[in-house]
Amino acid sequence: MKKIAVLLSGCGVFDGSEIYETVVTLLSIERNGAQYQCFAPDKAQMHVINHRTQDINANSKRNVLTESARLARGEIKAIQDLDIRDFDALIVPGGFGAAKNFSDFALKGPDATADEKVVEFCKAFANNQKPVGYMCIAPSLLPFVYGKGVKLTIGNDKGTAEALTKLGAEHVDCAVNDIVVDETNRVVTTPAYMLANSISEAAEGIEKLVKRVVSMT
Amino acid sequence: MKKIAVLLSGCGVFDGSEIYETVVTLLSIERNGAQYQCFAPDKAQMHVINHRTQDINANSKRNVLTESARLARGEIKAIQDLDIRDFDALIVPGGFGAAKNFSDFALKGPDATADEKVVEFCKAFANNQKPVGYMCIAPSLLPFVYGKGVKLTIGNDKGTAEALTKLGAEHVDCAVNDIVVDETNRVVTTPAYMLANSISEAAEGIEKLVKRVVSMT
Repeated sequence: MKKIAVLLSGCGVFDGSEIYETVVTLLSIERNGAQYQCFAPDKAQMHVINHRTQDINANSKRNVLTESARLARGEIKAIQDLDIRDFDALIVPGGFGAAKNFSDFALKGPDATADEKVVEFCKAFANNQKPVGYMCIAPSLLPFVYGKGVKLTIGNDKGTAEALTKLGAEHVDCAVNDIVVDETNRVVTTPAYMLANSISEAAEGIEKLVKRVVSMT
Repeated sequence: MKKIAVLLSGCGVFDGSEIYETVVTLLSIERNGAQYQCFAPDKAQMHVINHRTQDINANSKRNVLTESARLARGEIKAIQDLDIRDFDALIVPGGFGAAKNFSDFALKGPDATADEKVVEFCKAFANNQKPVGYMCIAPSLLPFVYGKGVKLTIGNDKGTAEALTKLGAEHVDCAVNDIVVDETNRVVTTPAYMLANSISEAAEGIEKLVKRVVSMT
């Protein structure tokens, strides 16, 4: 059975992984006949956000791996425990955590730098020509992994697309229910909640992404 | 469009709502042509559990409504803000939160008592003959809402079933991919993660439950 690594950045759209994107991904992996293993970096979250008020809770500290464990029902590994030989592909859900805990793109845009250990984890898939899927704002990590010319989408947000272009990516506008495929790098992307107005809208593109990634293994 | 209330108990299987059950429920509601609104009680969680180690973090406090807001992308209401006229049905996902924050069933079993405001919220649906769906361990709340004789399932766990029988329920064994329907009380239940070994196994019963509840509105 094909095995897909899923990289998480916490648990909650404003400071971690987008929960709906993650769960739709996991269910879709199984329904495409594959299995998954979740991973996350063992580091402090950039922010803890009160999801009711969207305020930053400056007095609160949470750990990315520990909170990601909520999303994985405890079945999680730290990124340094990856053995790339065990995996056929990687999928990275979005949520602000992907642009706060994997890099500081959410704050610095075109001047962002990325977490070296996270980049190393993602590069293991790139260096072994394994297919990957990144959704929502997670493609902001791709220029750090694949370098100049990587083709991706985050939907159609002009400011975000320009920041990614400055980082070296080739941005392609894309509808919420569709995907963009970089055949050279074997990278699939979809806008998900960068554009979606509902969970079923997000699910349509995510299910298409998962199906494509699994078919490329 | 039919509108379904979804009652949450936090965010994470060991101290709140089971995340996969909740997300599959929300997606399924939309795919059955209805819409949803999430609710939660504004109270302290019984526990904060480290989902990586399953240890209780005794120094940490989290609020059920605030953590439930993570699962609802911020789109959440407190239970006292329910206007029953706006809703056609109620669905309650499981997770330990449903047996820790709605009642103390997880600790006290047959000697449990329930949160009065949560019971009042659920009784609004019962008193107006609106159909409801409870999954996983959430049916442990049903004897407090419907009284003696309410027919339900939590799967086939003998100890849990006996505790519910002592509380006045009629327990019916049920497979993970099936539902039990109490036609008199208009209550649908499914075992979900009381029995499921995977997200796709849980999803099959949950999708059946949501479809039935929506069809009963």
